Amino acid sequence: MNIPKSNFPRIIIIGGGFAGIALAKKLSKKEVQVVLLDKHNYHTFQPLLYQVSTGGLEPDSIAYPIRKVLKDFPNFIFRLAIVDEILTSKNIVKTNIGDLEFDYLVVATGSETNYYGNKEIEINSMAMKTIPQSLNLRSLILENFEQALLTDQYHERDALMNFVIVGAGPTGVELAGALAEIKKGILPKDYPDLDTRRVQINLIQSGDRILKEMSDKASEKAEQFLEELGVQIWKNMRVTNYDGKTVTTNTDDIFETAALIWTAGVKGVGLKGLDAKDLLGSGNRIMVNQFNQVKGFPNIFAIGDVACMQLEDAPFGHPMMAQPAIQQGKNLGDNLVRLLENKPLTPFVYKDKGSMATIGRNKAVVDMKNIRFQGVFAWFVWMYVHLFFLIGFRNRAVVFVNWVYNYVRFDREARLIIRPFNRNYDAFKD
Amino acid sequence: MNIPKSNFPRIIIIGGGFAGIALAKKLSKKEVQVVLLDKHNYHTFQPLLYQVSTGGLEPDSIAYPIRKVLKDFPNFIFRLAIVDEILTSKNIVKTNIGDLEFDYLVVATGSETNYYGNKEIEINSMAMKTIPQSLNLRSLILENFEQALLTDQYHERDALMNFVIVGAGPTGVELAGALAEIKKGILPKDYPDLDTRRVQINLIQSGDRILKEMSDKASEKAEQFLEELGVQIWKNMRVTNYDGKTVTTNTDDIFETAALIWTAGVKGVGLKGLDAKDLLGSGNRIMVNQFNQVKGFPNIFAIGDVACMQLEDAPFGHPMMAQPAIQQGKNLGDNLVRLLENKPLTPFVYKDKGSMATIGRNKAVVDMKNIRFQGVFAWFVWMYVHLFFLIGFRNRAVVFVNWVYNYVRFDREARLIIRPFNRNYDAFKD
Repeated sequence: MNIPKSNFPRIIIIGGGFAGIALAKKLSKKEVQVVLLDKHNYHTFQPLLYQVSTGGLEPDSIAYPIRKVLKDFPNFIFRLAIVDEILTSKNIVKTNIGDLEFDYLVVATGSETNYYGNKEIEINSMAMKTIPQSLNLRSLILENFEQALLTDQYHERDALMNFVIVGAGPTGVELAGALAEIKKGILPKDYPDLDTRRVQINLIQSGDRILKEMSDKASEKAEQFLEELGVQIWKNMRVTNYDGKTVTTNTDDIFETAALIWTAGVKGVGLKGLDAKDLLGSGNRIMVNQFNQVKGFPNIFAIGDVACMQLEDAPFGHPMMAQPAIQQGKNLGDNLVRLLENKPLTPFVYKDKGSMATIGRNKAVVDMKNIRFQGVFAWFVWMYVHLFFLIGFRNRAVVFVNWVYNYVRFDREARLIIRPFNRNYDAFKD
Repeated sequence: MNIPKSNFPRIIIIGGGFAGIALAKKLSKKEVQVVLLDKHNYHTFQPLLYQVSTGGLEPDSIAYPIRKVLKDFPNFIFRLAIVDEILTSKNIVKTNIGDLEFDYLVVATGSETNYYGNKEIEINSMAMKTIPQSLNLRSLILENFEQALLTDQYHERDALMNFVIVGAGPTGVELAGALAEIKKGILPKDYPDLDTRRVQINLIQSGDRILKEMSDKASEKAEQFLEELGVQIWKNMRVTNYDGKTVTTNTDDIFETAALIWTAGVKGVGLKGLDAKDLLGSGNRIMVNQFNQVKGFPNIFAIGDVACMQLEDAPFGHPMMAQPAIQQGKNLGDNLVRLLENKPLTPFVYKDKGSMATIGRNKAVVDMKNIRFQGVFAWFVWMYVHLFFLIGFRNRAVVFVNWVYNYVRFDREARLIIRPFNRNYDAFKD
């Protein structure tokens, strides 16, 4: 890679997600050369992917050009690249566009869908971790309804109108709620020649409550909201297989569906060269110390979803969510500056700002440190927080316009099959 | 196709473009059963495709769900289908999802890019007639700049930053202007490590003026605007070939480029069964009489770009643009009702509302019947008219927000490679 050496030490950041961008901002105008590598040229606001899948938002509104984030940082270089391997002994990153030496390396590769080794589910189910995946799911949902119009077989038609969502974390819950609202508000108008009362939305959860990371009250209320919307919740159930037609479970329940959406888990996106067994914690995450340093490599760091910082109050690392990623990025940014100034590093301390999930129109649940609330006000808080964390004024304005429109009109106009569904779509592995 | 017969005559409309939608609206709540077929589930506002390609707008803002247009029309049925053939003797449309009988058939298939038989240009160049094509072009443009960063070869880098647009109609002119503004306003910030002064935008025109359908004054002014923006205009030049690297011309000029955009012509999208030689006029368009009736088939009509109504004042048919399509759709709608009531048909009379093109910020040209103007006011008129003709309040609001933002911030934030460029992308032939 033809990137000229500067007089300053070079920091390579792999990944422009929440963690990588937060770190980058801290390093602007410092005496370092920063090279940011990502396989996409945009940052994705993952918490709103489910709205892209369900036609509520356009993909471009929740993506932001990475080059634009960096444009006022004179010491920054971005390259669209796929990292193949880290040669830790030589301080070199190997990529599809060549090799690059680093003085410091920060791995912020994030997470990907975890199928827990089940290849058949991986091949046949839909994930929702990237924009291309979300658009692919949008196309599949819409195409299934078009397909349902074409068959005389009840059985087949029902399977095409049956959604099975596995995993009742925030993503699964929010997607289930959105689909339920589509069933109610849009399908009867769009498909007058289908009996859309037969549309089913099933949400399957292995544990005994949904939103298990949140408070009991939030779980309970979310469950009530979903049931009001007509979502069928299956607790204490594990999906054992899906062949593209039939979902089997450990409780011998069976679901016939043309759309299984897998939101049951994530794992760290590993990197060759940093994948030694003793480096990895649960969920394929790279073990780091309190300064986000990778064990045994004083100049290599990991932050965000891919980093597992085992602490007494977080024995499996921090939650794989935006907040820990942002906070770790900021802390590491300050620490890297301190490191270069030979000052002592500050250990990372996670400030839990709470968590929230929206179920649908006027329905959300919010857990904050000292206060928990549910319902309309929670829904407004959810929207405000998501608008606030979106990068860029234009994105905020466009998302706001869409939300106001969708709210007032009970509508979701981005129900467009821009590119037909493709089971094998895998550019850059999405 | 399992569409039940109603008591009313069945009208099949093929194509949900300007013509098909205008016709559909006229037939709502009439005593007919209307079946609209399209290969996409959305209507495309083609005049703004160049803004999707250049990152100024999101694709979803210029597309509109066809089902939503029809949702208040109880006598309407939509099917996502690709038409294979018309069996005129049996009054049957054959599609990929089955056959369907009609009482009346309206062909509104629109137009596609015309390469005038040059297969090599067709394979290697980029078209911009559909949303997938426009997104593909957006990806190519952005990927070429990323690629330009990776090479040490001047020659190769220049080719990656060289745009050749063939055809200086409104599409070519508007695209050239948009690229010139990107060169000026965005590239130097996004690619500080590239010498973006070397970016070239070439616009090639076979005739001796650009925007040849418009007034001399408009051509002259548009040319001046483009030159101010740094676009190189080549008149009286024909492209003879493009192998993916080198453009050859009839004047022996040569251009090395990684992006040839072909906007040099369109032709009607024909249909098997209606492709007999004596049915077709110039540009593969179906010859129709003044009632848009196809010669020899009293119950088959063609409207919009695909229809060629030869008249004294329009010896090659009407311009292949939105206005004639919309007006023909409306007129035919009224005529079909008259036909069913055994009333005499009204011949189509084209009301030329003028034409316009925008070159860039504050720069547009407008020709109306009694008045022609150019510059800032023309630019506002252009924007107003385009917002007005966009379908749907949400689309208008989102496009408006984007335009205001782009204007105030000299920006285009949708410069996202959502799906990587794919030379062979051809789902449904786009």
